[in-house]
Amino acid sequence: MSAEANGSSAAATTAGGSLQSICYERGSLRLLDQRKLPLETVYLDVKDSTDGWTAIRDMVVRGAPAIAIAAALSLAVEVWNLDFNGTSEDASSLLIKKLEYLVSSRPTAVNLSDAVEKLRSLVLKTVETATEAKTVFQAYIDAAETMLIDDVASNKAIGFHGAKHLRSNLDSLEKISVLTHCNTGSLATAGYGTALGVIRALRSEGFLEKAFCTETRPFNQGSRLTAFELVHDRIPATLIADSAVAALMKAGCVNAVIVGADRIAANGDTANKIGTYNVALSAFHHGIQFYVAAPITSIDLSISSGEQIVIEERSAKELLHSDGGRGKQVAASGISVWNPAFDVTPARLITAIITEKGVIIKKASDEAFDIKGFIENAK
Amino acid sequence: MSAEANGSSAAATTAGGSLQSICYERGSLRLLDQRKLPLETVYLDVKDSTDGWTAIRDMVVRGAPAIAIAAALSLAVEVWNLDFNGTSEDASSLLIKKLEYLVSSRPTAVNLSDAVEKLRSLVLKTVETATEAKTVFQAYIDAAETMLIDDVASNKAIGFHGAKHLRSNLDSLEKISVLTHCNTGSLATAGYGTALGVIRALRSEGFLEKAFCTETRPFNQGSRLTAFELVHDRIPATLIADSAVAALMKAGCVNAVIVGADRIAANGDTANKIGTYNVALSAFHHGIQFYVAAPITSIDLSISSGEQIVIEERSAKELLHSDGGRGKQVAASGISVWNPAFDVTPARLITAIITEKGVIIKKASDEAFDIKGFIENAK
Repeated sequence: MSAEANGSSAAATTAGGSLQSICYERGSLRLLDQRKLPLETVYLDVKDSTDGWTAIRDMVVRGAPAIAIAAALSLAVEVWNLDFNGTSEDASSLLIKKLEYLVSSRPTAVNLSDAVEKLRSLVLKTVETATEAKTVFQAYIDAAETMLIDDVASNKAIGFHGAKHLRSNLDSLEKISVLTHCNTGSLATAGYGTALGVIRALRSEGFLEKAFCTETRPFNQGSRLTAFELVHDRIPATLIADSAVAALMKAGCVNAVIVGADRIAANGDTANKIGTYNVALSAFHHGIQFYVAAPITSIDLSISSGEQIVIEERSAKELLHSDGGRGKQVAASGISVWNPAFDVTPARLITAIITEKGVIIKKASDEAFDIKGFIENAK
Repeated sequence: MSAEANGSSAAATTAGGSLQSICYERGSLRLLDQRKLPLETVYLDVKDSTDGWTAIRDMVVRGAPAIAIAAALSLAVEVWNLDFNGTSEDASSLLIKKLEYLVSSRPTAVNLSDAVEKLRSLVLKTVETATEAKTVFQAYIDAAETMLIDDVASNKAIGFHGAKHLRSNLDSLEKISVLTHCNTGSLATAGYGTALGVIRALRSEGFLEKAFCTETRPFNQGSRLTAFELVHDRIPATLIADSAVAALMKAGCVNAVIVGADRIAANGDTANKIGTYNVALSAFHHGIQFYVAAPITSIDLSISSGEQIVIEERSAKELLHSDGGRGKQVAASGISVWNPAFDVTPARLITAIITEKGVIIKKASDEAFDIKGFIENAK
């Protein structure tokens, strides 16, 4: 794995202009080293599954979809460049072995093991009829590339539906300013982003006045990553402390809030980065629309409401030390800390849920989302 | 000015047990060096007005009342230890000259120039009848000591009234847990504190279950100073990120919020550290009582409502660099920042205002505070 620093951030850009953390073309994969952001833009060359395994374990790449796709593509690059003389069965064995190895880079990542399982089935199915190793490899490469394309396409669809909905919902305004929380952009997905994807779409349609991003304490995903993406894409943007959200809204600077989701319950209650619920309460109080943007896969119909979601706690060090726990001690010694990873925003504070299949709105007569019905209709 | 480090924090404690930033007895003044908190507890010996001037300019001491009192006491120590052979007029001239010098340490501090003006008048009045230098010096020393005693007494009265009010208002509970924001304790006043004074009083009456303090971004007054005071006083306490306030309230962990005030308008609208308004909105939504604790001097009857308070902005560096701007860069280069120093909480979100003269409550029939009437009755 070799490093390449870019003085200019232009190298991190697609033709469309938005930041790319996964730069892939057949036979070549480069990953933006997120450990060095926002101070340095360094891409690492990933030549094979060993490089991919290391990049995942060492947190070069983060975000559930991004990890799965980086793993799949690292192996695609390896087999594309491979001088291979074996049979189709040999090719299949090699792929299966390497896929199992890739899962071990982050054994708890569900997206990664799901992706590997899909690719394994594809390989096993292909080898049943393939007569050449080349055919098996090609089928694998095509499937890995499809994962990348599908994730970006899904995000772009979220962006399209979200921007269209916001334009029609706020059609009395010439342009709108949007507040977001945490990072939901190219650095958390295969590209483009969910909530940040909607902001990108609003921007490309000329309907965005300005984006505001919160610092997103304690791990600073907003000031480190979202601010980085917004500056990179030349989107007019301003960073605020999480504690300045209500003052910003009272000052009339925000027309809508768009956030991502870790998990959405069947009734629309949404678990997302700690602080989301604060922002939702403030938006509700100021009469500002509050949107959740997430792929359908974030919806968990087995959970009837947010009450069933257990809040995971993170390390006290994230508050006790600067830079989200990486820097020197700043807080008083001996103080206890409560550091929940996320909170749950109740559905009644959410205006609508933006997915790649369209926007889930509430019935006029009540405050409930019919998410199950929406998903069934979308099939 | 000589430094003295305390391995144990016991040296920072009064008989009552609460942290002291100004340790004074006749002829001796030591100031807790707040620049070194929370990692080091170091007291600086202040032997004269030159030491006092330096301590104020170099931010050893902070908080408007604390600065004024430290200045006055530094000169009291100087003249107490002085081997002086002049007349009463010579003594008066010396005091007036030194007071003018002390004002120059922080020319914009209104409390400091107000205090100096009062002390100057006292000196000029005393010298009219005094026949000895000693009499003039003694009058000055008495007046400076009275300032210290009055400020602490005022805070203790706030604590007393606040604790009494909360006990009667929440009498169905055996003990209560209280959330506070920013630092309003011994480190911001001459001692004991305003909002933190109420928490101290609740604790000493055995009615406090736990105190929660916010980090208070971007300058971390909560994690650095309030957490330090709470640990020092052995008050059960937990630090949270500002963004975790709503989740904490939803979890049922908070019975009341108590904050300080920079300025209170005639209608009760309260300007205080950025984030206070966020906390108030969340408290209101969760049906949690929200109190402002401040001396009567914080009330500005010339301002009819919070609309007239202009929000001051602070340096972008506080968000862009770690540790409130003192550490290394953490945020993305090139991002704009909006960093308001405080926000305004509307009176309708405030349950009551706790002062040293008693608690200002709302009339049952409406949402307005009659602050002017309260002050007139309290005279």
